[in-house]
Amino acid sequence: MIDLDPYKLILASKSPRRHELLKGLEIPFEVRTKDTDESFSEKLQHAEIAEFLARIKGEAFLSEIKPDELIVTADTIVWLGDRVFNKPQSAVEAVEMIHTLSGRMHEVITGVSLLTADRQHVFHDTTKVYFGEVDREDIAHYVERFKPFDKAGAYGIQEWIGYVGIERIEGSFYNVMGFPTQKFYIELQKFLKP
Amino acid sequence: MIDLDPYKLILASKSPRRHELLKGLEIPFEVRTKDTDESFSEKLQHAEIAEFLARIKGEAFLSEIKPDELIVTADTIVWLGDRVFNKPQSAVEAVEMIHTLSGRMHEVITGVSLLTADRQHVFHDTTKVYFGEVDREDIAHYVERFKPFDKAGAYGIQEWIGYVGIERIEGSFYNVMGFPTQKFYIELQKFLKP
Repeated sequence: MIDLDPYKLILASKSPRRHELLKGLEIPFEVRTKDTDESFSEKLQHAEIAEFLARIKGEAFLSEIKPDELIVTADTIVWLGDRVFNKPQSAVEAVEMIHTLSGRMHEVITGVSLLTADRQHVFHDTTKVYFGEVDREDIAHYVERFKPFDKAGAYGIQEWIGYVGIERIEGSFYNVMGFPTQKFYIELQKFLKP
Repeated sequence: MIDLDPYKLILASKSPRRHELLKGLEIPFEVRTKDTDESFSEKLQHAEIAEFLARIKGEAFLSEIKPDELIVTADTIVWLGDRVFNKPQSAVEAVEMIHTLSGRMHEVITGVSLLTADRQHVFHDTTKVYFGEVDREDIAHYVERFKPFDKAGAYGIQEWIGYVGIERIEGSFYNVMGFPTQKFYIELQKFLKP
């Protein structure tokens, strides 16, 4: 069990999945959100992107953070080959994204930042996700029914497409959902008692 | 999407997790349960055990199965080194089991049987589960709060101990929960249209 003393934990994320996962850790927290510019240099690759975005989401609170606050920010990206898959802008784009992921391995990387008034610690966790061959009819059914427009890569592993389409993963399941619970639990303990 | 015609699917399992997972596949089914003797020969090893138990759970319906019924049975085992971990009989045994799994890799194997009046198909799926080092205090907290006495190996990956204690898996997450949804989806399609 984690003793947060002397801090209050603040989760700065709008993602209902992150709220649910942090709740599952049985650590008390409140939610405080802030819009951040999420653009990043094209020179950044792979985990650098997730860590960069988690870091700047945290830094956005630097002007207002109180001494007893510990702010958690996170960013999850989907990486296939040499590029990032963002959130789809339309149903057609969502279908195309899942079709591209079908029959292939991609990586899901979540960067996490722990920020207090005087320290910041950023880490990431990577999970390899292997989709089986998913046919167009199944992809179309999923997109129509689940409308995955708020999800990088256009899918949720905890939804129908994750049940029928994902053959195997290597790494943390919860990391694919958007928050690496086990690694966070370990890193938070180290951050609190360095 | 799966067309069950001409069959009705019957899930012969008491496990609420299997009910939930099959529901998540959006395949209509009813539940019909039967108590079966689950003893097995000590000569059986690893996946042979899960397949044997899934098979005999199905065969228990042979005297009553109707021509339009497709009966699904399953059994999930936890295998560490050279032995099976059953459901714990007490809180002390549950703590000991998780302590033994802590810091190690074990395998979770689910056998599944598809049975109609004239055919039976049995398969299995294996997932490797890597626990991090979980301390005694956390194990005791989990056992007290979640009472994992209905779970082989004394843990549920979808519960607190899965959030804080499991570093990574290799394979299907839902298989660890008790039902290999993706493999079932593929094998059921092949069974229906051989």
